[in-house]
Amino acid sequence: MKISDLGEFGFIDRVASSFQGLLKEGFTGIGDDCAVLPKNESQVLVVTTDMLAEDVHFYRSKISARELGFKSLAVNLSDIAAMGGKPESSFLSLGVPADTDISWLDGFFDGYRELSLKENVMLCGGDTISSDRIVINVTIIGSAEKSLLRMRSMAAPGEIICCTDNLGDSAAGFRILQQDLAGGEDENFLVRRHHCPVPGVAEGQWLARRRGVRAMIDISDGISSDLRHILRASSVGASLDLERIPLSRQLRSVSERHQWDPLDLAVNGGEDYCLLLTVDSGEFENISAAFEETFRRPLTAIGGTDDMAGDLRLFLNGKQVRCNGSGFHHF
Amino acid sequence: MKISDLGEFGFIDRVASSFQGLLKEGFTGIGDDCAVLPKNESQVLVVTTDMLAEDVHFYRSKISARELGFKSLAVNLSDIAAMGGKPESSFLSLGVPADTDISWLDGFFDGYRELSLKENVMLCGGDTISSDRIVINVTIIGSAEKSLLRMRSMAAPGEIICCTDNLGDSAAGFRILQQDLAGGEDENFLVRRHHCPVPGVAEGQWLARRRGVRAMIDISDGISSDLRHILRASSVGASLDLERIPLSRQLRSVSERHQWDPLDLAVNGGEDYCLLLTVDSGEFENISAAFEETFRRPLTAIGGTDDMAGDLRLFLNGKQVRCNGSGFHHF
Repeated sequence: MKISDLGEFGFIDRVASSFQGLLKEGFTGIGDDCAVLPKNESQVLVVTTDMLAEDVHFYRSKISARELGFKSLAVNLSDIAAMGGKPESSFLSLGVPADTDISWLDGFFDGYRELSLKENVMLCGGDTISSDRIVINVTIIGSAEKSLLRMRSMAAPGEIICCTDNLGDSAAGFRILQQDLAGGEDENFLVRRHHCPVPGVAEGQWLARRRGVRAMIDISDGISSDLRHILRASSVGASLDLERIPLSRQLRSVSERHQWDPLDLAVNGGEDYCLLLTVDSGEFENISAAFEETFRRPLTAIGGTDDMAGDLRLFLNGKQVRCNGSGFHHF
Repeated sequence: MKISDLGEFGFIDRVASSFQGLLKEGFTGIGDDCAVLPKNESQVLVVTTDMLAEDVHFYRSKISARELGFKSLAVNLSDIAAMGGKPESSFLSLGVPADTDISWLDGFFDGYRELSLKENVMLCGGDTISSDRIVINVTIIGSAEKSLLRMRSMAAPGEIICCTDNLGDSAAGFRILQQDLAGGEDENFLVRRHHCPVPGVAEGQWLARRRGVRAMIDISDGISSDLRHILRASSVGASLDLERIPLSRQLRSVSERHQWDPLDLAVNGGEDYCLLLTVDSGEFENISAAFEETFRRPLTAIGGTDDMAGDLRLFLNGKQVRCNGSGFHHF
């Protein structure tokens, strides 16, 4: 059997269960956006790590060194955000060909530093090796109040599912790069959203302080996949109203131009790196109003949880639809 | 300018200085075996990360999956050991080709788990990606008593330099693999020392509790290189008496067979992953006797520090020698 037969999540389950027995009390290992480790009386550490490889996650010819440095840190910060954590230190391992120009590396570190400064994260260590293609690994250690931690497992039936930003821009940006369609203003906006995602660190900490906010996750694989992690961890079901998913003007216009289904990109695309969360239905109105006042962006309700454990249903204008790989169709 | 012109340490200095301004009080970043972060009143966190790439650090055809899993964790544990820390959690990112057989991965995780169990370290998270060659990144978080931490900068003139194990075995094992000389019992012993280094975690913690023990580092690049890190960080000089360097019977015998200079392998080889430390000269006798009683291995004095800041001198049977790439020669 090959690893491709098992799939990423099948493989992670296999590893997680074989190491489960080693976990001591107070430690939460594989299975959420971050691991949770004891720190002191009131706080825990939240830790995440991600690897990016050339020609798998990015093409060196399509992303600038500065953008790549920025994005390498951003995707990890997003995992810290999803726990309601405050990022503190980062560790960067970088494999590059020996003939890499120093100016490329300076650009990479400029982008990494720009976001480090913005989010007040210290680069505390790392490793540099020579490798034939670029490979990047970032680990971030953050902290969180034990009582404010938000896990995938904290959803219950009857809650409102919402997201903190427009969805689908990044996936459209990636498609624009793949199909060499960049150049127009809207296209470039979407490519930028793909290359320089803005992690919701402040939003995550703000949301974690609201009692009505329950489960959180960041959207890295697309809401259909990421929401399933919440459903599985919380043993709840969900339905989504696709027409409520927030889409940018640029995504709508570029999708129309190229006859793409923007909802397909929004639901199945991924790499949005905003937050997906469930909120107590009685508190949603207050929380979303305060969120919009604070962040000048809406917290958009896109569906709700129910007791049909593990089951995800999609509705478009009130009619149930399914996704067959080329958009959404009625049953 | 290329990164190869700058060299690994030149590049690290460049990055470290450009991120230095971000460091908050209580945090120590790039420049020792581990970063040091605040944990609670009495304890600090020690964190290290290392990347290993196929065809750079290992050849898939020469190392078993199990050995590679073991070694990936071992080289990081050795950095924790060098600070006198207690490893607690590990984070593993693994890039493998999509057609990798699950049996290879099971072997890798068996080796990783074997050492995790032995050293009581939890695997708490990670990432899996597909990549054309194997690439491994391990981050370990450990803890240490703030007052017992041992840094590269803690040496002073007049101390005794010593090491906790034989040197050169691993470098000889690597040469045996490169030259396809494996097969004999002694050769296989040396290859095993290269593939399954035993990190000195218990030794590091034990040594950190002795007041007479000052600077510590693990030997990853070879004592001539690693000792220079201590000299630089502590602003001291050193002389080494090469004939006192502990060499295994197997290294002596294989070196004789192939007309290798075992001292060259011991001084310039690297990947020994034992500890190099300086000890107060008045306390060396007591500490080394207790070390031998506890670990059934000698703590071997191989030289001393002095006030000739940054200067390293090598002596062989009382005569100063220099290394010209093919062994040691009198001036």
